[in-house]
Amino acid sequence: MSRSYNLQRLFNPKSIAIVGASADQNKAGYQAVNSLRGFPGQLYPINPKAGEIAGFKAYPSIAAVGCPVDLVILAIPAAACVGAAREAAAAKCGGIFIISGGFGESGDEGLKLQEELGAICRETGLRMLGPNTSGYMNTYASTFASFAPGVEALKPGRIAVVAQSGGVNLTLAFMLHAAGHGVTLSAGLGNAVDIDAADVLEMLALDPNTRAIALHLEGVREGRKLYEAIRAVSPHKAVIALPAGRADVGAFAQSHTGNLIGSHARKAAALRQAGAVVVASTDELVDAAITLAARRIPPKANPGIGLITGQAGPGLLIIDDLKFHGVNVPELGAATVQEIQALLPPLTFMKNPVDTGRPSPAFPQVLQALAGDPAIDAVLMFTIHEPAAVDPVMALGLAGKDKPMVFGTMGLTESIAPTLAALKGKGIAGFASPERLALAGRVLAEDAIAQARLQIEDTVQLDSSKATPLTRTPNEFEAKALLGRYGIVTPDSRACASHAEAHAAFTAVFKPVAAKILSTEIAHKTEAGGVLLGLRSAQDLDAALAKLDAIPLKGARAYLIEPMAAPGVELIVGAVRDESFGPCVMLGLGGTAAEALKDTAVRLAPLSAADAEEMIASLRGKALLEGWRGAPACDRRAIVKLLVAVARLMHEHAEIAELDINPVRAYADGVVALDALVVLA
Amino acid sequence: MSRSYNLQRLFNPKSIAIVGASADQNKAGYQAVNSLRGFPGQLYPINPKAGEIAGFKAYPSIAAVGCPVDLVILAIPAAACVGAAREAAAAKCGGIFIISGGFGESGDEGLKLQEELGAICRETGLRMLGPNTSGYMNTYASTFASFAPGVEALKPGRIAVVAQSGGVNLTLAFMLHAAGHGVTLSAGLGNAVDIDAADVLEMLALDPNTRAIALHLEGVREGRKLYEAIRAVSPHKAVIALPAGRADVGAFAQSHTGNLIGSHARKAAALRQAGAVVVASTDELVDAAITLAARRIPPKANPGIGLITGQAGPGLLIIDDLKFHGVNVPELGAATVQEIQALLPPLTFMKNPVDTGRPSPAFPQVLQALAGDPAIDAVLMFTIHEPAAVDPVMALGLAGKDKPMVFGTMGLTESIAPTLAALKGKGIAGFASPERLALAGRVLAEDAIAQARLQIEDTVQLDSSKATPLTRTPNEFEAKALLGRYGIVTPDSRACASHAEAHAAFTAVFKPVAAKILSTEIAHKTEAGGVLLGLRSAQDLDAALAKLDAIPLKGARAYLIEPMAAPGVELIVGAVRDESFGPCVMLGLGGTAAEALKDTAVRLAPLSAADAEEMIASLRGKALLEGWRGAPACDRRAIVKLLVAVARLMHEHAEIAELDINPVRAYADGVVALDALVVLA
Repeated sequence: MSRSYNLQRLFNPKSIAIVGASADQNKAGYQAVNSLRGFPGQLYPINPKAGEIAGFKAYPSIAAVGCPVDLVILAIPAAACVGAAREAAAAKCGGIFIISGGFGESGDEGLKLQEELGAICRETGLRMLGPNTSGYMNTYASTFASFAPGVEALKPGRIAVVAQSGGVNLTLAFMLHAAGHGVTLSAGLGNAVDIDAADVLEMLALDPNTRAIALHLEGVREGRKLYEAIRAVSPHKAVIALPAGRADVGAFAQSHTGNLIGSHARKAAALRQAGAVVVASTDELVDAAITLAARRIPPKANPGIGLITGQAGPGLLIIDDLKFHGVNVPELGAATVQEIQALLPPLTFMKNPVDTGRPSPAFPQVLQALAGDPAIDAVLMFTIHEPAAVDPVMALGLAGKDKPMVFGTMGLTESIAPTLAALKGKGIAGFASPERLALAGRVLAEDAIAQARLQIEDTVQLDSSKATPLTRTPNEFEAKALLGRYGIVTPDSRACASHAEAHAAFTAVFKPVAAKILSTEIAHKTEAGGVLLGLRSAQDLDAALAKLDAIPLKGARAYLIEPMAAPGVELIVGAVRDESFGPCVMLGLGGTAAEALKDTAVRLAPLSAADAEEMIASLRGKALLEGWRGAPACDRRAIVKLLVAVARLMHEHAEIAELDINPVRAYADGVVALDALVVLA
Repeated sequence: MSRSYNLQRLFNPKSIAIVGASADQNKAGYQAVNSLRGFPGQLYPINPKAGEIAGFKAYPSIAAVGCPVDLVILAIPAAACVGAAREAAAAKCGGIFIISGGFGESGDEGLKLQEELGAICRETGLRMLGPNTSGYMNTYASTFASFAPGVEALKPGRIAVVAQSGGVNLTLAFMLHAAGHGVTLSAGLGNAVDIDAADVLEMLALDPNTRAIALHLEGVREGRKLYEAIRAVSPHKAVIALPAGRADVGAFAQSHTGNLIGSHARKAAALRQAGAVVVASTDELVDAAITLAARRIPPKANPGIGLITGQAGPGLLIIDDLKFHGVNVPELGAATVQEIQALLPPLTFMKNPVDTGRPSPAFPQVLQALAGDPAIDAVLMFTIHEPAAVDPVMALGLAGKDKPMVFGTMGLTESIAPTLAALKGKGIAGFASPERLALAGRVLAEDAIAQARLQIEDTVQLDSSKATPLTRTPNEFEAKALLGRYGIVTPDSRACASHAEAHAAFTAVFKPVAAKILSTEIAHKTEAGGVLLGLRSAQDLDAALAKLDAIPLKGARAYLIEPMAAPGVELIVGAVRDESFGPCVMLGLGGTAAEALKDTAVRLAPLSAADAEEMIASLRGKALLEGWRGAPACDRRAIVKLLVAVARLMHEHAEIAELDINPVRAYADGVVALDALVVLA
């Protein structure tokens, strides 16, 4: 049977066996049976000793069940799992899910066990969730395949949870439950030896109940596969991702997931580029999923968020939060302001936010006017619970369904609960905090922006078959020639094998001139004294060559002679081939200081022009490119072209592990790559 | 009667009158009476028309009450408030609180009314809360002086709320209530014309019930007074502050509070420097207050946070969050690890965090071992609700009370509620989220660090009487001489009135030399062509002088001749006299790029060496000072001395509005101020 069919069997089983089922209430093997009490299919506790467990007839082995069970849960120690997996495969079961730890996360021996399990899956088509996970909850199928108490109380909903960690899977599912929301599927991947996040995303793409996917990630082994899966699903279902590892958690992360591949920056950038909204905590992940499952803004490059508030202070916090995060909070049009002025006393602010003061009977009309403004793509409404002054359910109901609306409030829990529940019934998300409402506005905007970028189909056409692979590490001259083939401008460089050739080159190029040592033996030319600048005369050149000749070299000695570039803004452009995510392109502001400040942007290759534009826009110091202190603005289009070209080069030259163009000098009318270093894989 | 006695009367009244009391349930004047139903003192509704309101006998005027009422609530339009305030003052009332808007936040007319009210307060000793606020709730006195429905349900607690905005006051009080916590006093300041945050903090300093103060701020009119108030109270009661205005909210903020004085960076820096913990949202403010009201870490420069977790995934998120925010998560000592190894199976991480895997009966002992480690100053514990595996109440109870403990969990709301309530009863804060638990650890650490800094009494002794004030704007030579008097090193500069003097100076100083135009007419010398560098010969100097002579000047022409400084790391040091907070000192990394990157730190003057050290440590690009790319580390002590000296200079020279030292060049053995600009007030 096909691997994808077995994946379906694992997550939507008609029959489940629990190996290690136990009558001891303190054991996971008991709780797993207990959680599945309401499972509508066949349940087979497997235990050689017990006749009956929790009211279900027990079987001595998987084979003894006598039919191919869809899902086999293994609640047994790590060492026993390989045998049980072989048994399950032999019995033509669909999949297994392993609760125990003691695998890749715990050392070499566990890693060996884990690899054996992976091999069984590849060879037999058996699918495996985990090992080292809390399992999954499929509410629509009443299948609570987990040992955690309380999971069977989870309700059907519109949000799927896909968590690397079993503990985070439970945390997110219970958080959604506490907020009054159910889940479709909530799955913990654990060590993800066979089934990974991309597999589950592909399955969820076809699930009619799922409208948003909350994704928790630690290490990502096959980053490119995940990127493609998110890119495919995110136009149809919102994907919100929480990538762990902002800080260096080093040894602990190793012990936990066995690996935390790829830098956090690369992972977060890849997720955004694929169309996911990236958040920073489980609380944010839950709120964002609730917001986007209710309603999304259609794809738009710069959507506007409107706010109507009954109280100025919380309104200020909301606007502050939105603007701090770069969200567009446009001023309302003159017609809208006029309409609102006719409805409100002239004491308050009316241009966005609309501050109604203590809510009046005109509140619903003001809300309608705000929602009707063409600059507004989603409406946030905040008001302290004050039923005598405003009825949010009525007001939001009257405002129509053209645009997403989100409600924020505060008051006694028992007073605001009916309002939030009634709005939820109308498909309107609500939060009891000003800043949680602001987060809703932010993720609505970020989601629409990401989807708009995905719609721009301007990715450069790639044809990797045409590029001739490099067979040895190029020197600077050859590296620049390679850049030149991708349309990247470099100085008028001359490679010279002798002093005579260097003098001839010196005569031919514009002064002043730079003379550099030309050898792949010297990785850091400047530090080695291999770069001499500002040469104006033949004497200057002779002195420079003498200095270069003093640098010890094993191989042939050569020189690079090139005209010096005019001053401009310095950038760094680099590329690496990430083990998990494949080729990535990096842009940073140049100069020593900037490198220490780590002001860089990274994206997966290939790049669209929109991706490259976003990289520039995301630099903290982008003001330097926009005409700093009266200097002319840099040629943004040229920077975009350079980034797109570097991405294409990395895509077409799979043999290149790293590329560094440092510095790139940017001018009002173009950019020049002043140095280039290529490292082969 | 004294102003401070009247402040007490306002917030702890024995009698309350409500002007504008109404029988119309939709009016604030009704709700204000309604909220005070349970008020144990005398309640006097004031309404010329009504005989009785909500069961209380109404009076036609304040005077008609016949005795000096402690608090008069004004639920009447703005225009009527001045008259009512005069009436209250004449009747020797303690204070008034004005609900209405329509004052300073709404334009010139309202501003005039507000100023009149302020004058009445200054002249008569009457105190005023607001105008434009929701009032206050004093739970211990059962005094709910607010028009917001539900406030009378608030319970006594250990946390005080002081909010600039009435709406935020209600939001915070209800959030605390929802989390199961009460308040002592919860007050909204509104326009804060008379009573400001500092006044309330001074009063709360003496309140035996208050253990932590949650402070919300917008514009701060008297920043120095607030700074002193926080500095005085924070060693005794934790202060947590949410300063609004991270983004530029411009026009709306103006309309709301009438002013948003001082940049957000200055405000946040002043709050931290005074000993407050600064947070970014109402949610964080509430969680931080709950954490610090339960227990604080004693003052310590670098406290260590320990984590014990039953699930690795949430544990990773917690550690990630702590480390991302720079919190010290120390490795446990060898003895502790050994102790734990004897208790746990060898599958999990044990060095901090301690990952117990699925909690076992040994959990309480592991927790005790962790809490006993000398590197650990506070313990965080996380576990998914799994009563069969661990009882958090028992485990945390056994661990003793030597160090603060905070609990984090997730599970069905109804299942975890009893655990959280039981822990609260034991004085242990608990949160249903991994990252909210991490925030607790972070604020425990930040609070202890801030208090440790306050304990270092190394502020430079100041004597402003000794400094002779500048009477006119100094030129660069004079400005550098002023710096020299504060021990700040400057180049060996010579002021020259003629070419001949310039040549004499040139002969005397080290080469190469810089020649600059010396005139207060030219603010931006470089842009004007007024700085010529690298002069090595008399001819070079003549050419330079000719160029300087070409710059048009109205007044006398002069030159500054000085030896050029060796290359080093460039810094910017500046100072401004903030309208609200007084003299502030700024440190930034130098160079054009760095300025665009806005990597700066700011503190109020005077500065202690510890403050200055913190400024350096807070720069994103501080790596540049620590020996970047093989360069020697910069002389940190010299930078600290310079910052402390600049702070002293600003304190002693009240006539200076701004001081810019740009650049300061830092070396392995000292720093030199290469340029100086002084702007008088």
